[in-house]
Amino acid sequence: MGKYLFGIDLGGTSTKFGLLSEEGRLFDKWEIPTRIEDYGKNILPDLAEAIKDSIADNALTKEDILGVGLAVPGAVLNEKDVAVCVNLNGWGGCDVATEFSSMISIPVKVANDANAAALGELWKGGGKGCRNMIFVTLGTGVGSGIIIDGKLLWGAHGAGGEIGHMKLYPETEGAASCGCGKSGCSEQYTSATGIVRLAREMGMRDDDSKFGFLSSKDVFDKAKEGHEIALAAVVRFTDELGRTLASVSAVADPEVFVIGGGVAKAGQYLIDMVRPAFRKYAFPACEQTDFRLAQLGNDAGFFGAVKLFLND
Amino acid sequence: MGKYLFGIDLGGTSTKFGLLSEEGRLFDKWEIPTRIEDYGKNILPDLAEAIKDSIADNALTKEDILGVGLAVPGAVLNEKDVAVCVNLNGWGGCDVATEFSSMISIPVKVANDANAAALGELWKGGGKGCRNMIFVTLGTGVGSGIIIDGKLLWGAHGAGGEIGHMKLYPETEGAASCGCGKSGCSEQYTSATGIVRLAREMGMRDDDSKFGFLSSKDVFDKAKEGHEIALAAVVRFTDELGRTLASVSAVADPEVFVIGGGVAKAGQYLIDMVRPAFRKYAFPACEQTDFRLAQLGNDAGFFGAVKLFLND
Repeated sequence: MGKYLFGIDLGGTSTKFGLLSEEGRLFDKWEIPTRIEDYGKNILPDLAEAIKDSIADNALTKEDILGVGLAVPGAVLNEKDVAVCVNLNGWGGCDVATEFSSMISIPVKVANDANAAALGELWKGGGKGCRNMIFVTLGTGVGSGIIIDGKLLWGAHGAGGEIGHMKLYPETEGAASCGCGKSGCSEQYTSATGIVRLAREMGMRDDDSKFGFLSSKDVFDKAKEGHEIALAAVVRFTDELGRTLASVSAVADPEVFVIGGGVAKAGQYLIDMVRPAFRKYAFPACEQTDFRLAQLGNDAGFFGAVKLFLND
Repeated sequence: MGKYLFGIDLGGTSTKFGLLSEEGRLFDKWEIPTRIEDYGKNILPDLAEAIKDSIADNALTKEDILGVGLAVPGAVLNEKDVAVCVNLNGWGGCDVATEFSSMISIPVKVANDANAAALGELWKGGGKGCRNMIFVTLGTGVGSGIIIDGKLLWGAHGAGGEIGHMKLYPETEGAASCGCGKSGCSEQYTSATGIVRLAREMGMRDDDSKFGFLSSKDVFDKAKEGHEIALAAVVRFTDELGRTLASVSAVADPEVFVIGGGVAKAGQYLIDMVRPAFRKYAFPACEQTDFRLAQLGNDAGFFGAVKLFLND
């Protein structure tokens, strides 16, 4: 009989868990709030308790578990060392895999959340059957997970796939400043935050929102209805996203981009807008690169975290 | 006793050959003119004759030869299929490895020239000892070869590492048009041609050249002497190159960039100018990425072509 695996996607607000078979069958999934106070000192104990409870609830033993994969919102080296995570109140800066493994007596592997989601989408989602795929997540920021010949591109400093920080503009042009400390970063234009900023600059207001506070969904919904400013914001957003992904192609040349994250809720409309913008900028050999929507939603992270144990 | 290998670097003007051991010891090197007339119909027969002559001259037999690696100026898929090569008068568009191998009865593997040079520099040059390295060649155009975990990133369409075609500017800004048919490409600013164009736009003339025709070397030489316009052109060039490589780092995150090609004749001065420009734009985790000069010069291509047989 095959073994079981736990996948965990540790987020700034909540943490998602999945109990899977080696074939990727999902037996159970649930989530808990992430307690980030006191530099996140409760994070690993909370995760350990949740895993132990699930093992007991499902009448399993530790020997039934092949491993626990953990996706975290920060840079990871060697599937274990986690850099300090800004969104987790400074948690990290240590060998999380070894520490967590010693708490639960089960092998642990760690990956960056966008990288894990890429593995998940490759395994069971929008990238199934691909060898060279890039998963792009358009949320508060912009991240990606790059799969080359079936394997994750981690990068020498754990920064592989940080495409939200590609520089679309030179410093001299008064480019938008970014949370990373630099300016002109792609995510200032191509994230959920970015499109709202563009729409506000063009004249949209919270009055244009369904819930009194302008969101990327509002901008896309209004654009679909033909709202002129919203459409102009979407056009600028997709132009910058198309240019970003064209430059990504000129480096890593994937066969497909799988688009996920909050902005991807705009659905096929987003894909239909981005594709021509991409083609306008792409190196000719890459013009036919495919675009697909992600399929696993919030489950992609824990699916991919599990896949860390099944990749060799 | 070990076997021998031939490496060939097929260029638009001349073709370079090397006869090497499996350990990378160079026994002989020479070059022949490339005859590109009639859609390059003489190219493979000329190469075959050169190989056969060398085997005879060195009292070898075909059985002594492990293989022939061939670097070509165009996109390559599966180490054999070569796209049509613009600089070879339309030669290519076929399975070059199989065709050439049948002419010489020796196994043949083919790679793009920038990719081959990257393998060469990794093996015996500026990237020795690295696992994640990007070789950047700054010549008439800008190309690169990307090494991830010791292996070449080929790309799904053979366009991996085509960083000269990353888009530095949106279409709407009257960006410089490029030979690839698009505009705003990095190589319009970061190649030998690019820096001469920038210098001319700023007011340098052929009179400023040693040989009556302004070259990238003239611009760098004048800049080193403190020539104001030349220095401004170099500053703009290095800013665009730094921004390009910062964006490359946000995708592939290498430990080192190895810089080669004609512009690299400017030497350490180029490195000293590019490094701060890169840091200004780089994602913080990548700021300490190393910069080195290439070491193999024109031999990098045939060294790397040989390495195609020694990589597994």
